[in-house]
Amino acid sequence: MRELLGGKGANLCEMVNMNLPVPQGFIVTTEACNNYYENKEVLNDNIITQVYEKLEELEKNTGKKFGDKDNPLLVSVRSGSRASMPGMMDTILNLGLNDEIVKNFMPNNKRFIYDSYRRFIQMFSDVVKGYDKSKFERVLDEIKKSKNVTTDIELNEEDMLEVVNKFKKIYFEISKEEFPQEPKIQLLEAIKAVFRSWNNERANVYRMMNNIPYSWGTAVNIQEMVYGNLNENSGSGVAFSRNPVNGVDELYGEYLINAQGEDVVAGIRTPKSIETLKEIMPNIYDEFYKYAKILEKHYKDVQDMEFTIENGKLYILQTRNGKRTGVAAVKIAVDLEKEGLITKEEALLMVDPNQLEQLLHSSFDQDEIKNKEILTKGLAASPGAGVGKIYFDAESLTKAKENGEETILVRLETSPEDITGMKNSNGVLTVRGGATSHAAVVARQMGVCCISGAENVIIDEKNKIMKINNIILKEGDYISLDGLTGNVYQGKLNTISFELKGDFKEFMSWAEEYGRIIVRANADTEKDALVAKKLGAKGIGLCRTEHMFFDKNRIFNFRKMIIANTKEERVKALNKILPYQQEDFEKLFTIMDDEKVVIRYLDPPLHEFLPKEKIEIESLAKDLNISYDELNQRINDLKEFNPMLGHRGVRLDITYPEIAIMQTRAIMNAAINVSKKGIKVHPDIMIPLTIDVNEFKYVKNIIQTEINKILKENNINIKYKIGTMIEAPRAVIISNELAKECDFFSYGTNDLTQLTYGFSRDDSSKFLKDYYDKKIFEKDPFKTVDEIGVLKLVNISKEKAKNSNSNIELGVCGEHAGDKDSIYNFDKIGLDYVSCSSYRIPAAILSSAQSNIINKRA
Amino acid sequence: MRELLGGKGANLCEMVNMNLPVPQGFIVTTEACNNYYENKEVLNDNIITQVYEKLEELEKNTGKKFGDKDNPLLVSVRSGSRASMPGMMDTILNLGLNDEIVKNFMPNNKRFIYDSYRRFIQMFSDVVKGYDKSKFERVLDEIKKSKNVTTDIELNEEDMLEVVNKFKKIYFEISKEEFPQEPKIQLLEAIKAVFRSWNNERANVYRMMNNIPYSWGTAVNIQEMVYGNLNENSGSGVAFSRNPVNGVDELYGEYLINAQGEDVVAGIRTPKSIETLKEIMPNIYDEFYKYAKILEKHYKDVQDMEFTIENGKLYILQTRNGKRTGVAAVKIAVDLEKEGLITKEEALLMVDPNQLEQLLHSSFDQDEIKNKEILTKGLAASPGAGVGKIYFDAESLTKAKENGEETILVRLETSPEDITGMKNSNGVLTVRGGATSHAAVVARQMGVCCISGAENVIIDEKNKIMKINNIILKEGDYISLDGLTGNVYQGKLNTISFELKGDFKEFMSWAEEYGRIIVRANADTEKDALVAKKLGAKGIGLCRTEHMFFDKNRIFNFRKMIIANTKEERVKALNKILPYQQEDFEKLFTIMDDEKVVIRYLDPPLHEFLPKEKIEIESLAKDLNISYDELNQRINDLKEFNPMLGHRGVRLDITYPEIAIMQTRAIMNAAINVSKKGIKVHPDIMIPLTIDVNEFKYVKNIIQTEINKILKENNINIKYKIGTMIEAPRAVIISNELAKECDFFSYGTNDLTQLTYGFSRDDSSKFLKDYYDKKIFEKDPFKTVDEIGVLKLVNISKEKAKNSNSNIELGVCGEHAGDKDSIYNFDKIGLDYVSCSSYRIPAAILSSAQSNIINKRA
Repeated sequence: MRELLGGKGANLCEMVNMNLPVPQGFIVTTEACNNYYENKEVLNDNIITQVYEKLEELEKNTGKKFGDKDNPLLVSVRSGSRASMPGMMDTILNLGLNDEIVKNFMPNNKRFIYDSYRRFIQMFSDVVKGYDKSKFERVLDEIKKSKNVTTDIELNEEDMLEVVNKFKKIYFEISKEEFPQEPKIQLLEAIKAVFRSWNNERANVYRMMNNIPYSWGTAVNIQEMVYGNLNENSGSGVAFSRNPVNGVDELYGEYLINAQGEDVVAGIRTPKSIETLKEIMPNIYDEFYKYAKILEKHYKDVQDMEFTIENGKLYILQTRNGKRTGVAAVKIAVDLEKEGLITKEEALLMVDPNQLEQLLHSSFDQDEIKNKEILTKGLAASPGAGVGKIYFDAESLTKAKENGEETILVRLETSPEDITGMKNSNGVLTVRGGATSHAAVVARQMGVCCISGAENVIIDEKNKIMKINNIILKEGDYISLDGLTGNVYQGKLNTISFELKGDFKEFMSWAEEYGRIIVRANADTEKDALVAKKLGAKGIGLCRTEHMFFDKNRIFNFRKMIIANTKEERVKALNKILPYQQEDFEKLFTIMDDEKVVIRYLDPPLHEFLPKEKIEIESLAKDLNISYDELNQRINDLKEFNPMLGHRGVRLDITYPEIAIMQTRAIMNAAINVSKKGIKVHPDIMIPLTIDVNEFKYVKNIIQTEINKILKENNINIKYKIGTMIEAPRAVIISNELAKECDFFSYGTNDLTQLTYGFSRDDSSKFLKDYYDKKIFEKDPFKTVDEIGVLKLVNISKEKAKNSNSNIELGVCGEHAGDKDSIYNFDKIGLDYVSCSSYRIPAAILSSAQSNIINKRA
Repeated sequence: MRELLGGKGANLCEMVNMNLPVPQGFIVTTEACNNYYENKEVLNDNIITQVYEKLEELEKNTGKKFGDKDNPLLVSVRSGSRASMPGMMDTILNLGLNDEIVKNFMPNNKRFIYDSYRRFIQMFSDVVKGYDKSKFERVLDEIKKSKNVTTDIELNEEDMLEVVNKFKKIYFEISKEEFPQEPKIQLLEAIKAVFRSWNNERANVYRMMNNIPYSWGTAVNIQEMVYGNLNENSGSGVAFSRNPVNGVDELYGEYLINAQGEDVVAGIRTPKSIETLKEIMPNIYDEFYKYAKILEKHYKDVQDMEFTIENGKLYILQTRNGKRTGVAAVKIAVDLEKEGLITKEEALLMVDPNQLEQLLHSSFDQDEIKNKEILTKGLAASPGAGVGKIYFDAESLTKAKENGEETILVRLETSPEDITGMKNSNGVLTVRGGATSHAAVVARQMGVCCISGAENVIIDEKNKIMKINNIILKEGDYISLDGLTGNVYQGKLNTISFELKGDFKEFMSWAEEYGRIIVRANADTEKDALVAKKLGAKGIGLCRTEHMFFDKNRIFNFRKMIIANTKEERVKALNKILPYQQEDFEKLFTIMDDEKVVIRYLDPPLHEFLPKEKIEIESLAKDLNISYDELNQRINDLKEFNPMLGHRGVRLDITYPEIAIMQTRAIMNAAINVSKKGIKVHPDIMIPLTIDVNEFKYVKNIIQTEINKILKENNINIKYKIGTMIEAPRAVIISNELAKECDFFSYGTNDLTQLTYGFSRDDSSKFLKDYYDKKIFEKDPFKTVDEIGVLKLVNISKEKAKNSNSNIELGVCGEHAGDKDSIYNFDKIGLDYVSCSSYRIPAAILSSAQSNIINKRA
């Protein structure tokens, strides 16, 4: 019942059914949340009545009474949506306390009561009222300073009372009213706050990034409090049933004695490793280990559990499938399969394809770091090798990133506000917080390298510097983070690329076995092609020939071709380019031995290749031996109002058939040379942006005539295919006719998306944020293929094409071809292949397998 | 059998069946032409054999022999395609002559023989060989000069022999071989030349302009020669059975004594009016009149006939339905109906909707021209009032036109090369040529004002000046042409707009009666709306609100709105615009009393309204009281890579709902004010560029909330509709969902064409010429809706929309809505209305009627 109760709530209910020690409580459903938003953010009476009824039941079951000054029922209030959203939702503990209860309750443990009350006031102020929590923290810091102590735990009863009074004073100053004393009011306010938190900016960003629909809503979990901060025989902790960083089968987690749960994950006090609990409270450790394994078996997955020890008794507060790094995800999946807990299919479904990119993280050159001095060492919180310039706030970092800088985020501790900064960084370094701190959890999920708890680092945020031992680093200085060891290095270290081996290799071999839709690579260079091959690409599905011209030695002749005034001049320049292009194709054919290489003919508008700045134009004019004015005039002539909708793609070949002829010659010469070496070549010639059958036939005829000439001259036969990209809606509509002329189609869903929506990728980023903010769009149509519009067109085209040419091969190239949800859809409608960028290939192969498994089951 | 024989050939056959005096002959079919092109421009043996067979038959029937030196068969070779293409195709007369025949044949009329031979040599050189005909003309001019005569006819036998010899010499000099002496070779070469002329540039341009498919091909008519140049009892002429300029029921035409047909239409000698034939050869005149009426009755249409008188005997060489001006077309259609020759339906089908625009030509202010001196007078060859700067060649004129100038083409005589120049001019003035000259025929068809035969005009092409009496006018000087009277005025006269009256009014009332699809106007101003109403528009189908902002007084606040940094600033600026906009709507509602007014909300990207030049930016910055840098920065921020695919249409309302609110207020306030005066208002609110249902609902909700508020405040009820434009392919695909939310759709087929093809109108003009040249495209998809792609999408959308909302109203706005073929298609798929620019309304109403008549018949 995750839909109704949220993940947290559903798991609590399951644990109760399994007789695990869970504090009693009840759940306000996600339906109530949706009702709240439909009802213009007001709780309706029906919901309030039901809450009160359940509260009464809870009072009966616990023998405590809400608001009773001697035996009060205190509760925790937590959010819980269908999908886990770490750090996004707000929690309130100790709800139900007021001045009167605090005065009367537990006369022998006043420190605990004051501690609980001050926590409650702060959380309520922060979460429900949205007051600036730093005001409260400053008070706490001042008192600790005046008492000359460093941690909360060192404050005594009187200190805590002082904190409570000062907190109440702050509350009054801000709100102009007393802290609410009526527990029921506290509860309703808290429920509403949880609902509201579903709609805050952070939550919206997270949902966007993770494709979680707004309509899911969040549930609210209301549970009787258990007190980890009751005394020294109490504590709170968080632990995984297996190591979420590397996947090893061991308990992995942290706890704090005499603390409430928030202390552990907030990163304020550095908690102790769960291993130490084995010595301090061996029975509790064993009991916890037992529950962990029960839960793991029940959920057939690694569990991430919160627990509290109240005066020597263990409670499980929450369990959920544990987030993990890509490395861990793969190892765990393979291990669970080997342990017989799950099937290969289940193992394949257990790993998020998007996480696989993390396994492709580069690492440092071991020879180089052997001799490199370690600046400091923290916890290895998220793997990878992160190199970049340091920034101390998310905003500066993001700006630097936008300017093309490589960045590292350095923070005392991270808060949810840092999410954007983390996303834009190559690595995160925090002073406080353990391996389960916010920074660590989020970094792991994002696949960003992270070192946390590097306690030797002293940050001076104001002056934007940090001090490690005696070394001072300022904003913009380079550091290098090794997320596998926790080592921090000064300067910019070299990174080396990954290897496909071990569990990862095995896992990928399963994926290849289970997939149907073929995965090819977008690769334009030898380097791309080698990576693609290593990662399992079945050939090249998109070689963008224009990328081959950007090289300094080549761009000159290419530009000469562009500004040519006559066909003769153009052909002359093209003939100079021919050998380069031929050489590139020879390399690609050689690497892709016996696999397809789909070569797209020149696509972008020619003016994109010309210089824009005056100084560059002058320089080029000199090189070309023409006047500045002449060149400038030519550049202006080529300018377009809407380059996306301009003279590009096959249109270039219509105007300048000599370009198509040169590219054809380069391909066929290369194919002949390579095949003479005994390598099998399968060149596929792909015409971009076709919109008309006559247009395609015209160019096809030019190409075939040239090919026939070359093959005859060389007295050899090479099999080749000719196809087109389907990018314009008109190409979709005429697919039946086009299919008769084509050996294959490749859906260019980037351009098809732009033309279907009528907005360009570059220009739409400006206004699409308004669409997300206003809940008009929930997904980025350039990331995941639009099911309602673009996918429908692809499907229409596919039906038409297959009807008139049942042998036609149909694929997709472009961003969507590497996206999980899009691949599911492409698989579902029966396309033959996807072609994505090299580093997305494992994700695509896994997505292909998952889709096939899901569809077979369906 | 027009498809096979061409129009000319088919009509010749019909006339033979009607026992009219037609020279004998045979026809090479259009199939042979297509075969010639399929066969790589080679005549195949089968065709040649058949030509020879038919030639033998012709010899038998005429008793003459091809190549015989004493009794030679001479033939004319003429092109003739299914559709008439005046001036495009090439004709050869006197074919079959050679040196030997010339020496022997007709010893008593050597002048005639030499005259015939020199004509043949020149035509063969020009048409078959493509040699520069001016070389031949120069020789003729020199001889005339040396003999001190002005016309060919004054040259005697010896002079003509000299001409023949010089012509042969020129031929030899160019071709390095003797003029071909074998008649069969001459014939085959001539047939090929006719076929080739189907594919010359002029023909291709003409076909493009008139939507004639390339695949039709041309036939070749081969007929026994009859000799209008035999003697003074012979002659050639061209005449219409009714006046093609004004439609009056009278013979209208010209002839020349002792001349071949080419002399009459070439405009070299100014021919005599057909009226004078009545006196010179009354029997021939009566006989011709009789045939004219027989043919008119047979074809149920005005005939355009060529005739030759050979030594007192009349031959009809050709008949075809006569081209006519729009004015004449309407009068003739109405008259023929009244004469009982045709039905109303036939009358409606007889007029080309595109010609109706000619009836909307302005004329000169009669009071002004009363006092204006007439510079000179020529023949009133094509009606209208043409005002512009004079140019003496098509190239300079076209350049000036592109720079926004109004132009008049002045030529000694026009040739087919001038077509583009004529198209780009407001009027044509020629020195030579009668009312049936090339210039006159083409100008009438194009609806361009034309005065021909203005013999007082002396042109100095080299110095780009002309002299009329003693007044010298140079390139770029203004003149004014009155195409109704033939008067030429110096300077720039004022024109006044047309009136809908007489035959035109009656004809349009029939059209309205027979049409189904409703015709509305694109009108943004009071002036537009008044014209539209006068021309029969049933309300406004597209009011582009942004056009209302370009006024100097308004643009300032509009720009202020655009560069506003906050919502408050924006609202402030919008509030200043509101009263203007409201006032405009009040005017439109008042004019369109009880008819719909469809108002499109702000559509173009905002940056389009901002200045581009530094000096303008500085000035605006000063006015806005901000710094240049700030304004420039804001302008740069708003710039887009692809404005067509940018922040425009409904996207503006999503980001700035305050714009939609202002526009809503202006509409509803206007509607309330106007309806209080007893005028019935029907405001339709139209959201542009919708791509998503949520997007539409979001904006609709804002608008409806505002409307409800205003109506409540005013305690009044105004009925209104809300709909959207369908411009993006995604809107097509989601039409079923959108239709549930919309009262109407308007297909914006301009943008839909751009997005379906993936090229913009502005950018594609550069490369689409290659598509036409290479026969990839035959029609301009921005002129006539693309049946294969765009129309299919419209139909898909329509089906989806009607399925989910059977009451939805569906229309089209944009260029296609005024195009005949497009309207036929929109009618066929069952759309409810089209909305086009005011001056296209009669054409649209007639197209609507024609479509309905055709479809009912089908």
